[in-house]
Amino acid sequence: MVPWQFGIIMTHPTNAPGIVHLRVRYTEVDRMGYLHHSRFFQYFEIGRIELLRRDGKSYDDLEQAGVLFVVVKAECNFKAPARYDDELTLYTRVAKQTTVRIDHVYELKRGEILLAEGKTTIACIDRAGQLQAIPPDLCAHF
Amino acid sequence: MVPWQFGIIMTHPTNAPGIVHLRVRYTEVDRMGYLHHSRFFQYFEIGRIELLRRDGKSYDDLEQAGVLFVVVKAECNFKAPARYDDELTLYTRVAKQTTVRIDHVYELKRGEILLAEGKTTIACIDRAGQLQAIPPDLCAHF
Amino acid sequence: MVPWQFGIIMTHPTNAPGIVHLRVRYTEVDRMGYLHHSRFFQYFEIGRIELLRRDGKSYDDLEQAGVLFVVVKAECNFKAPARYDDELTLYTRVAKQTTVRIDHVYELKRGEILLAEGKTTIACIDRAGQLQAIPPDLCAHF
Amino acid sequence: MVPWQFGIIMTHPTNAPGIVHLRVRYTEVDRMGYLHHSRFFQYFEIGRIELLRRDGKSYDDLEQAGVLFVVVKAECNFKAPARYDDELTLYTRVAKQTTVRIDHVYELKRGEILLAEGKTTIACIDRAGQLQAIPPDLCAHF
Repeated sequence: MVPWQFGIIMTHPTNAPGIVHLRVRYTEVDRMGYLHHSRFFQYFEIGRIELLRRDGKSYDDLEQAGVLFVVVKAECNFKAPARYDDELTLYTRVAKQTTVRIDHVYELKRGEILLAEGKTTIACIDRAGQLQAIPPDLCAHF
Repeated sequence: MVPWQFGIIMTHPTNAPGIVHLRVRYTEVDRMGYLHHSRFFQYFEIGRIELLRRDGKSYDDLEQAGVLFVVVKAECNFKAPARYDDELTLYTRVAKQTTVRIDHVYELKRGEILLAEGKTTIACIDRAGQLQAIPPDLCAHF
Repeated sequence: MVPWQFGIIMTHPTNAPGIVHLRVRYTEVDRMGYLHHSRFFQYFEIGRIELLRRDGKSYDDLEQAGVLFVVVKAECNFKAPARYDDELTLYTRVAKQTTVRIDHVYELKRGEILLAEGKTTIACIDRAGQLQAIPPDLCAHF
Repeated sequence: MVPWQFGIIMTHPTNAPGIVHLRVRYTEVDRMGYLHHSRFFQYFEIGRIELLRRDGKSYDDLEQAGVLFVVVKAECNFKAPARYDDELTLYTRVAKQTTVRIDHVYELKRGEILLAEGKTTIACIDRAGQLQAIPPDLCAHF
């Protein structure tokens, strides 16, 4: 009913995923020819940023204004490899948001094939590295 | 007695952690001056490889022999930031090993300060990408 | 008249540049907020590959067929910094081509502002790392 | 006698090279198994920073104090490939120094084999990105 009384703020009503198209770069694959697992987390970051942009916000502006986000938890299940030059689609959704943290979930696909499912928690900090409340106008948008 | 009847093979009896010293490189930090979260997973990979080397095995040789390992799951809790030029110590342990998978756990520290705790599952595959049994001589060593 | 008798093969008659649009990623900038200088060379590689694709060739296919290219010389003059989230345009041209080598030149711009001028020489090798002639059907296309 | 009247400041009298030992990381090699050419420039950066450290200076401290260096020119001749897990030695020397710029030269070797020769020019800027004179106490040390 009033979930934010527990520090939980409702996410975007529609919660449509952000969609990003990515082509795997040569420098992103390893000697096996696979997209290196660490790169998935870099893709997820792009997904978060583009989700924000879709809703009219710039992460660059936020950071310049002293609203920084750091990743406090990240996980990924790798289902199938991505290879050099593959065209991938990344779906990013907000799963939960509190006054200082946002959980995102990700699906990375090649066509209909699910390559990876990820989840991250980011926390809002100030320039000194201290937790701060997420600005109100971001609450429904991130 | 015969733990592998359940597909579980006992890990190294002593299970002493592998220890790696790393200095954070300039290209590894982001605009906030923090070691980028994706880099922690690259450090963990170094930890796995050095643990193997400590026990007399070369990942390079394994890969040349068609024994490949892929990461099928990775997670990390980030407790405190690492910064450019920080001298870090990475502790890597085998947590569990089956016939085809190995779980590692990691602690990344700056002095006594715990910066991150990670966990990965790697699976043994052949050149065609199919699961294969981990070679017996690796079972007690990885 | 017959320049290839000296080992020089004429490049694409029109020699129109390949054009790639790139947005600077968060993981590509350094602590100063600038696109790291090493990243320019990664962008140039994307420029070469997309120039090839424009002419109907896939670098992935080439490499699978044992036609590999290695960079034997690279240089760049950095004129102005690129920053996180900048939208850049990369212009790639073939400057010279011999039987085994191709020189590319690059201009990286933000709008009308020239950020960097680069030049690379790539050489065609086989899987054993030995020089081999560039396949004829690539001569007019790369 | 007074070389700086031409804007040239004498470099370290002995000009002994800085020496750095590097093991090629798995994430640094490409699908061909070679250290990616862009990574050489990242190694050169490590060489510059360690040369500075050898002479008692910290690049981190400099940057915190508003003394920034940007690369304005970089070039490299690649002679032979480096591969995953190779143990390399990087030799870094100051070739020339003016009031605002420093040229470094690099040799990257595996044992006695020369893999690459590089050269960079860095310029000293302030936080606003404007050229500034290199601090006097760095003149003989970089």
